[in-house]
Amino acid sequence: MKRSERLVAMTHYFLENPKTLSSLPYFVEEYDAAKSSISEDIDIIDDMFQKMGIGELRTVAGAAGGVQYIPDLSIERAHTTVEKLIDLLEDPSRILPGGYVYMSDLLGHPKYVHEIGQVFASAFEHTEIDYVVTVATKGIPLAYAIAQVIGVPVVIIRRDPKVTEGSTVSINYVSGSSRKIQTMVLAKRSIEEGSNVFIVDDFMKAGGTIQGMKSLMREFNANVKGIGVLAEAEDEEEDRKVQDYISLIKFMEVDETKETIKVEKGNFFSS
Amino acid sequence: MKRSERLVAMTHYFLENPKTLSSLPYFVEEYDAAKSSISEDIDIIDDMFQKMGIGELRTVAGAAGGVQYIPDLSIERAHTTVEKLIDLLEDPSRILPGGYVYMSDLLGHPKYVHEIGQVFASAFEHTEIDYVVTVATKGIPLAYAIAQVIGVPVVIIRRDPKVTEGSTVSINYVSGSSRKIQTMVLAKRSIEEGSNVFIVDDFMKAGGTIQGMKSLMREFNANVKGIGVLAEAEDEEEDRKVQDYISLIKFMEVDETKETIKVEKGNFFSS
Repeated sequence: MKRSERLVAMTHYFLENPKTLSSLPYFVEEYDAAKSSISEDIDIIDDMFQKMGIGELRTVAGAAGGVQYIPDLSIERAHTTVEKLIDLLEDPSRILPGGYVYMSDLLGHPKYVHEIGQVFASAFEHTEIDYVVTVATKGIPLAYAIAQVIGVPVVIIRRDPKVTEGSTVSINYVSGSSRKIQTMVLAKRSIEEGSNVFIVDDFMKAGGTIQGMKSLMREFNANVKGIGVLAEAEDEEEDRKVQDYISLIKFMEVDETKETIKVEKGNFFSS
Repeated sequence: MKRSERLVAMTHYFLENPKTLSSLPYFVEEYDAAKSSISEDIDIIDDMFQKMGIGELRTVAGAAGGVQYIPDLSIERAHTTVEKLIDLLEDPSRILPGGYVYMSDLLGHPKYVHEIGQVFASAFEHTEIDYVVTVATKGIPLAYAIAQVIGVPVVIIRRDPKVTEGSTVSINYVSGSSRKIQTMVLAKRSIEEGSNVFIVDDFMKAGGTIQGMKSLMREFNANVKGIGVLAEAEDEEEDRKVQDYISLIKFMEVDETKETIKVEKGNFFSS
């Protein structure tokens, strides 16, 4: 196989298999090329991924070594992604009765969701994560996108048990804003004991739902290694039950009468 | 930029922007290269994508023309993907009380879900689809994966209305297996009138849920261009309310006492 062909195939391979350690002999056999040629290919791809701001190829030495793609979005790319989102979200036609903001279209669009997933993944580049955990419904595509970038499964907490989940663990918690008692349910076999998890949701107001997910993770003896929300509401900041989280955007003001939405960048960008 | 670098960057670009028509001048400017060089790059990538069985680059002539990546999984790759799934699903430890089969882990794993998404997308390579539609909860990662491969948004039907969705359209329908009346709800602004949709779900028994989704799509004047389910139950085939669907796998027998699961390939492979 020619170098030009190998570069196409190997670029595809690394993008499809993030964080997977593959040995050089694997590539030597797969593409029928000398080890030295494969090493050069890897250098070219690594250089280019770094220039493009999408991560790097990391080489692990030794017998069990190899090379793996570590996705990492450059901070410039993260800024661009979030600025685009803010532009879309400040459209006053998104205002719903009660001062809510319609976001479902963005949360379902792979173009945006995948980029948001890359931003979150870049925040956990150096953390070992076994599962991305979310609660039904709207945050699921986002959680899946993050899971895809870092190459781990997504685990979905439900509001109601289902027969196709087998035995479950459930907790009751108090929703932060409505003060109502709510339930969360998760299949027992969905998470292994002692796993490291990243919790994600689309929106956080008082933080009750995130707090509930943290409690549920305790039941699984899972270590919460990070919490991410796409958007947070600014006005609830003081009473918030959860403090150690990353947000990409912050709703500063939603005015139904004046028909204005004011959105700023979240705390991901302030550190 | 050197050819080797352009190949890495352009391969990444096409994979990240499926079905997006991009003009040659775009690449000429982006990568600071002659039009003839870009054309050669495109030929190399196109050849290689076809050899790899992941689709092709299609050139559209004319002033509004350009080149676009059309994802299409080769039938060999589809067979391999589904055989791997069958292997995983026939593990008897998946049997749940009542003869159900635990699939949530596979439905949450990007590695499998992305490949399943590619198989479904290949079935609709020549059909114009505007949205991938599913109903909460378990099918969402799958729907998102398909949506990502074909580059359109995913739309999530809910079981209960939510204030963050704005005004909604809801229908009541009778579940095929339990004969209970159920509700489906979808935000009015989630689908434009006259759109083409692909309906997807993780599992179909009697077909009541899929039938419900079809009815709901009628309320939006949407054209159902295809229906896909990952798995179908074999025993319900005769009474099924829905006939025009694609399935990737079929549960032939789940025996709680003997602790055996028998899975075969679905109708996707029989045409």
